[in-house]
Amino acid sequence: MYLARIVGRVVSTQKQDTLQSIPLQWLQPVDAGGKDRGVPLVAADTFGLGPGELCYYITAREASIALWNLDVAVDAAVVGKVERIDLGEK
Amino acid sequence: MYLARIVGRVVSTQKQDTLQSIPLQWLQPVDAGGKDRGVPLVAADTFGLGPGELCYYITAREASIALWNLDVAVDAAVVGKVERIDLGEK
Amino acid sequence: MYLARIVGRVVSTQKQDTLQSIPLQWLQPVDAGGKDRGVPLVAADTFGLGPGELCYYITAREASIALWNLDVAVDAAVVGKVERIDLGEK
Amino acid sequence: MYLARIVGRVVSTQKQDTLQSIPLQWLQPVDAGGKDRGVPLVAADTFGLGPGELCYYITAREASIALWNLDVAVDAAVVGKVERIDLGEK
Amino acid sequence: MYLARIVGRVVSTQKQDTLQSIPLQWLQPVDAGGKDRGVPLVAADTFGLGPGELCYYITAREASIALWNLDVAVDAAVVGKVERIDLGEK
Repeated sequence: MYLARIVGRVVSTQKQDTLQSIPLQWLQPVDAGGKDRGVPLVAADTFGLGPGELCYYITAREASIALWNLDVAVDAAVVGKVERIDLGEK
Repeated sequence: MYLARIVGRVVSTQKQDTLQSIPLQWLQPVDAGGKDRGVPLVAADTFGLGPGELCYYITAREASIALWNLDVAVDAAVVGKVERIDLGEK
Repeated sequence: MYLARIVGRVVSTQKQDTLQSIPLQWLQPVDAGGKDRGVPLVAADTFGLGPGELCYYITAREASIALWNLDVAVDAAVVGKVERIDLGEK
Repeated sequence: MYLARIVGRVVSTQKQDTLQSIPLQWLQPVDAGGKDRGVPLVAADTFGLGPGELCYYITAREASIALWNLDVAVDAAVVGKVERIDLGEK
Repeated sequence: MYLARIVGRVVSTQKQDTLQSIPLQWLQPVDAGGKDRGVPLVAADTFGLGPGELCYYITAREASIALWNLDVAVDAAVVGKVERIDLGEK
């Protein structure tokens, strides 16, 4: 799973039927320090997180598990909110 | 799921049998601002979107869910049209 | 699915049993203009395409669908020949 | 599977239900020489490895196999500790 | 599937139970000319190839097919030895 910050919400009325009731967030992947890295993506989010919150998300086939429904056509889903990362000594 | 703009249609008469009736679009991934990024790809599209329209697509095993048929040999499919992205404050 | 050009054939006699009768091509991914991009790969091809021909291929679990046999140990397969790409106006 | 070093622990109380009892580590992928490479990630770890230890991890659908439960919403999991890599002559 | 050269063996005694009897190789992906490219990885290998030998490997869910056991927690496996690549004219 990768770290990301919620940056917005995707508005889409014409979408595949299995996605009808699924909120779609616009996520910016970030590094441990919270700095942007890589390409933003669209992910399902059933936690209702708001802009600025830090989360981790899963991708591919596992994403539908996060929605308790393997028949949903998603390949990315938020699976938790990150409070903090405790770094140990190397 | 990633954002992309429809840029064309792939013409292919000699193709795997499960793909016979599936329209194939030529997609350019874009960022939130609509600027091109990364490598264009071929994706199944049952929405009939036209050139210039913004969509989001899924990849890998999930793509066949989008076609309601797990036995179709695709690994990318358009799953919705994007009207807009509402950005929140960070 | 991504675009690629057939550039050769992989000769391999010592291979996993499920691959015994599967022709393996050496593919160079290309962009819409036919220019090389990214890393060449080994893909199953039941179309018998020849060097120089343009195709699109699928990856991961879907590749075995292309061979009508989910038990084949492949993660990339050619699924069609590309005649042309019709680009629309943006 | 890729090589990584455990660098910390992810603290997350609000998470998807199937993840409730799964310890989540913060992993830094490394090369054979132990040097950082690429993007850190969140992975499930049932070995209880500590900061600084070298491991290898699997991704995507296979990750849930590592937890003996295909219904867990993870896409990365530690599957072993690396003692050393024996390099042969090229 | 991608091309790689065997460069060593991964020694790991503390590992996930399904991996207990699986030899793990340290692979360096290479291009058609045999030059290193990209990031080395850990892959299951039931062929017993030695250092310096050229192989192709599969990744993700397909890797377990290569081991004839879908319940093994691997996401990369050697599936064949490459004798040579016959390049055609473009």
